[in-house]
Amino acid sequence: MNKKMVEVGSEGSPIRNAHNAALAEEEQLDTGRVYDLTLGNPSIPCPVEVTEALKKLINEVDPIELHSYTHWCGDLRARHAVAQYLNDTYQAGVSMEYVYMSVGAAASITISLHALVEEGEEVLVFTPYFSEYVPWVEKAGAVFKEVPTNKDFLPDEKLLRERITKNTRVLLMNSPNNPTGAFYDEEVIKMISKVLLEKSKEYGQPIYLLSDEPYRELLYDGEEYPFITRFYPYSVVCYSFSKSLSLPGERVGYIVIGDNNPEKEELFKAITGAGRALGFICVNSLFQKMLPLVISKTSDLSIYKKNRDFLVENLRRIGYQIVEPKGAFYIFLKALEEDAAKFAYRARDYHLYLVPSDHFGVKGYVRLAYCLDEDTIHQSISAFEELYESYQ
Amino acid sequence: MNKKMVEVGSEGSPIRNAHNAALAEEEQLDTGRVYDLTLGNPSIPCPVEVTEALKKLINEVDPIELHSYTHWCGDLRARHAVAQYLNDTYQAGVSMEYVYMSVGAAASITISLHALVEEGEEVLVFTPYFSEYVPWVEKAGAVFKEVPTNKDFLPDEKLLRERITKNTRVLLMNSPNNPTGAFYDEEVIKMISKVLLEKSKEYGQPIYLLSDEPYRELLYDGEEYPFITRFYPYSVVCYSFSKSLSLPGERVGYIVIGDNNPEKEELFKAITGAGRALGFICVNSLFQKMLPLVISKTSDLSIYKKNRDFLVENLRRIGYQIVEPKGAFYIFLKALEEDAAKFAYRARDYHLYLVPSDHFGVKGYVRLAYCLDEDTIHQSISAFEELYESYQ
Repeated sequence: MNKKMVEVGSEGSPIRNAHNAALAEEEQLDTGRVYDLTLGNPSIPCPVEVTEALKKLINEVDPIELHSYTHWCGDLRARHAVAQYLNDTYQAGVSMEYVYMSVGAAASITISLHALVEEGEEVLVFTPYFSEYVPWVEKAGAVFKEVPTNKDFLPDEKLLRERITKNTRVLLMNSPNNPTGAFYDEEVIKMISKVLLEKSKEYGQPIYLLSDEPYRELLYDGEEYPFITRFYPYSVVCYSFSKSLSLPGERVGYIVIGDNNPEKEELFKAITGAGRALGFICVNSLFQKMLPLVISKTSDLSIYKKNRDFLVENLRRIGYQIVEPKGAFYIFLKALEEDAAKFAYRARDYHLYLVPSDHFGVKGYVRLAYCLDEDTIHQSISAFEELYESYQ
Repeated sequence: MNKKMVEVGSEGSPIRNAHNAALAEEEQLDTGRVYDLTLGNPSIPCPVEVTEALKKLINEVDPIELHSYTHWCGDLRARHAVAQYLNDTYQAGVSMEYVYMSVGAAASITISLHALVEEGEEVLVFTPYFSEYVPWVEKAGAVFKEVPTNKDFLPDEKLLRERITKNTRVLLMNSPNNPTGAFYDEEVIKMISKVLLEKSKEYGQPIYLLSDEPYRELLYDGEEYPFITRFYPYSVVCYSFSKSLSLPGERVGYIVIGDNNPEKEELFKAITGAGRALGFICVNSLFQKMLPLVISKTSDLSIYKKNRDFLVENLRRIGYQIVEPKGAFYIFLKALEEDAAKFAYRARDYHLYLVPSDHFGVKGYVRLAYCLDEDTIHQSISAFEELYESYQ
């Protein structure tokens, strides 16, 4: 048996573990007063167009065709729709030939990592980061290397530059960020691109920018999303429709590389090769066929902004320290004691379930996922108040 | 970039490559006289109950619940339905706790391999074998080792025994077999179990039997399927609903281990660990929720038997050498010249698209996939006749 896989399976995802604890209390209590702020599971329904498209396909398309294997890089119409949408929306400069459909962001990232790195090369990740990056990077045979960010959880030029070595092959970034909600605007992306270009030149081979973008549409203050292929040619974009269409369980996403990538042909072969070798045959056909019918839609994301505004205002009022998140649906809250795990554990006394930050690569914080209905969010404030008071 | 992944992506699947050649001729010709016998894509619709279940779920279930993440080992009701079905049908002796839902047989096999083997250990595979086993085994860091079969493509006790070493960790088998249609009955399974038990004892650690079973229901002569957990405790069953429910593009399957497996707890952790590390989050939620409603159904598989009977009779009449397949939807035909690739290429002159056997681990054969409508199968016979005559 593979010892490392036993270990990865035994520890489980820290997010899932906290969520399971919340579920266990919910089963015991009948009061409905459990505030499960652990899971990034959208709390709003998919757009009605998604439901209509699914019905239409099931009613009208021959079932043999509807449920058959698609091309292993994805259904041609889905790939076309993705490329067209990205070009129309972000002037991304991409072609359908270099769109690879994948079963969500996780698969997009693992496939890209296996395609990009050789055993022992380094993958850099800004802290704090999504906890699952660690097993994904390590399974690809790469060395996971942290790059600290500034006090607003934003990349810092000097710190980034210092961490890059001749073995660095990939910088994996995530904006809007899980777990902090930080957003990397055009200025940040230009800084990152400049550093990577310089360092690629210095070491004589490209350092790839791998961008994990499931929260791309979840931006609350009118910012424009700087699509990275426009700024840096050695870019790989990993996307999932989990959050924008509220379809996390359906596992639909893609990998795309820009037309300006000088290695695009070889890289795309490596991506299809990695997808093949890892056992990803194709993405579920029904949902791929749905995509062209709904590609420009999103769920009604306004509740997330309302929840953010409410929580930022009220948590600060209580006395908690937070950096206002610009996107995604997380708040990274400074714990009221040094040990974040202890703080998260104490929060359970008030029926609050939070994820301690240790597994996100920093100490002393907890992550709140505010993708919940407004009532639950509003009611949770008294629990946060009691928790705060217990420390005074 | 990862050189090995570029290579795996460049060669592509030999089956897909032959299929693409058929598509290219179909696009050029307007005659409809292209016989594409390359792809194992079911030619019959899913059971009507599948369509009804999908409609019911979309119409009646809250979309947030319907499309949400399921438990990372699978939706509890789907896992329960699988275990119950296997116990009722095969007296499998399995529990839902050890059912892991996966996106089809490919993912089931790669996850199981990554869970079972350490770098450099050996995975044994009977020849001929499904070509994709090679990249899957190699990506898991294992050594791919062939075990020849007898003239009927059935396992041979002496040959199996000879190939097992102290480094052998897994025997990967596939019955009914792709590409030969061979079926391993109870006697064969008992022989394999006996050899593996003896060798496990000799080397002081279990050799696992990994069984790839997407064709389990496609058996044409009334045989009973010997479910391997009943015969050998160190078994892992990999299944997909692709063929039995004609849903190849929807990617729904599972891994299951028997209650009699002394290592089941640790192994299941390794399976969940491998699934996590490889980026498989969960199986598409809609189709998991559909499963309990249709678990005992199959498509109308009778056409495959008709096609088999027709082809066996007529290909033999023409003069071709074949071993009658007992299951699946493939015939493994002796090529009329030494070089199977040349033979398959020559067949294209008669608009016949076949997959040469070299990538299945043996020389001198081609694989015919007869999961096509009856008319196409009937019409193809004249092309097979012309091809045969061209060699006389």
